[in-house]
Amino acid sequence: MRGRFDNDSAYRIGVDIGGTKVLIVIAEDEGDIIIKEKIRTSPDINEIIKAINTCIKNSNIPNQRIDSMGVGVPGMVDSKEGIVIDSPSLKWRELKLRQILEQCYQFPIVVKNDVNLAVIGERWFGGNHNDNIFYIAVGTGVGSAIIANGQIVEGSCYSAGEIGYVIGKEDIQLGRTNNSLEFGTFEQKVSGTALALKGAELGYTPPELFLQYQDKNPKVIPIIKDFTLELSLAIANVVSLLNPEIIIIGGGVAQSLDCIIDEIRYHTAKLTPIAVRIELSKLGGEAGALGGIAYFLEQSKSKGRVKNE
Amino acid sequence: MRGRFDNDSAYRIGVDIGGTKVLIVIAEDEGDIIIKEKIRTSPDINEIIKAINTCIKNSNIPNQRIDSMGVGVPGMVDSKEGIVIDSPSLKWRELKLRQILEQCYQFPIVVKNDVNLAVIGERWFGGNHNDNIFYIAVGTGVGSAIIANGQIVEGSCYSAGEIGYVIGKEDIQLGRTNNSLEFGTFEQKVSGTALALKGAELGYTPPELFLQYQDKNPKVIPIIKDFTLELSLAIANVVSLLNPEIIIIGGGVAQSLDCIIDEIRYHTAKLTPIAVRIELSKLGGEAGALGGIAYFLEQSKSKGRVKNE
Repeated sequence: MRGRFDNDSAYRIGVDIGGTKVLIVIAEDEGDIIIKEKIRTSPDINEIIKAINTCIKNSNIPNQRIDSMGVGVPGMVDSKEGIVIDSPSLKWRELKLRQILEQCYQFPIVVKNDVNLAVIGERWFGGNHNDNIFYIAVGTGVGSAIIANGQIVEGSCYSAGEIGYVIGKEDIQLGRTNNSLEFGTFEQKVSGTALALKGAELGYTPPELFLQYQDKNPKVIPIIKDFTLELSLAIANVVSLLNPEIIIIGGGVAQSLDCIIDEIRYHTAKLTPIAVRIELSKLGGEAGALGGIAYFLEQSKSKGRVKNE
Repeated sequence: MRGRFDNDSAYRIGVDIGGTKVLIVIAEDEGDIIIKEKIRTSPDINEIIKAINTCIKNSNIPNQRIDSMGVGVPGMVDSKEGIVIDSPSLKWRELKLRQILEQCYQFPIVVKNDVNLAVIGERWFGGNHNDNIFYIAVGTGVGSAIIANGQIVEGSCYSAGEIGYVIGKEDIQLGRTNNSLEFGTFEQKVSGTALALKGAELGYTPPELFLQYQDKNPKVIPIIKDFTLELSLAIANVVSLLNPEIIIIGGGVAQSLDCIIDEIRYHTAKLTPIAVRIELSKLGGEAGALGGIAYFLEQSKSKGRVKNE
């Protein structure tokens, strides 16, 4: 989308930083998206700032009309201080990201873990205005984010939501453990990477596996059945523990899950007696950047601010 | 303890209602316990009120000096409205407990799920003043309570913390599911009841099983090893999801767990890379009633109230 600039409006920026690309979204007022750009960058912070500046320039919005920027980073983020404690995929450690960005911009900035920012995006832009949400992002790895009592649960040291480390007794019997910075036991079973490995043996990509499943390919059926059961099992246990109103399944793999969503619902209802709604994300890979906008929209709403205040 | 009555003090009552007994605790000011009585009752609410009145009478405290009462009930409780939605062990359904009690007493009353009240007790009286706590009560069944961001997580319909329903792939393979009002799949493995069943085959009670384990009885070792691993597994998965600062193990069985607490810590550290402190409850079966007192102490503290305001 290309921008137009309305002189009366307030603008907010959402940024989702990935290993090779940065997604930048600019929205007007209550969240009307006016620009959306995916820019290839290295994890060099100067290159990322350049990309943000290019996007702002393309929108024709003067800096003083920009209200805020929310930035999502994969990894462990001290969101109070805006410090990236550890981001293995970006190779950032103890990076004072908010401080660096504040030297470039005058508006308020928040830095959060990307999955935590995504659930905020899902709540605002996905129409899930609940106080108890569980968001699971199934992509290369698996991450999750929790909203309880209307607040993000970050845990005692910003490590909550690490569902990739969830482990079963059969993992222990196979000698598996979970180690920091390594792919977790749950991710080894339920992730795009796991599907890609299993699919490669048959010559299929993960999306092709789901198509083959719908075509009742007997070699693919057990792979997808197992994936479905493992995912449902994790969801059911989350429901028993947290009793969220809704489970949102996002991440890259979610786009292929339409064909198994009813099976996931069926299994989950068998595995926990606590009722829950299970939906696929409508925002896909844009949830994080949209969350960067939604974060400040929520803040201004809770402060009772009105448009163009 | 028998009461003494100080004319300058404020008094708070904590009540933990069980299937056959009610524990009533009265504390002075910042939580000095002056009376503690366990009274045998039926789940007849009039009998329970009579027990509370007897306890107040024994304390010599005039009703107008009593500040508050916090009541814990096993089961699903709408804590906002003070309604017991469903308590299978008391056979109460849709009971407007707070309203009934308010007709008898002039002071503020809160009604909560007993395990949720217990974690509030553990936080105040157990010296665990953290904002992210997971409390697991291993007794006849298994319950849990979550404090995240300093608040109890009750979930979207007051069903959070139902760790008894946590299920593993091996349960599914054995054809187990979880049904409302039935003993959960996790409870079938890790609870006093599960230990009692396994112990009965060898002629041991659950506490005796732990003594035999310390004596290296080869028939008992696999039972306790399996119990330890299953409990550690559940704790590790909670840690990966919620990143609490502390896990507190309470409930009747916790009294016997001193001999395996280090093994639980060892397994948990293997199963999740996220660090956590694991402790046994110091309050035992009194945590719920103490939580009834602590709830209002916390409230008054957060309102900045001072003694004898």
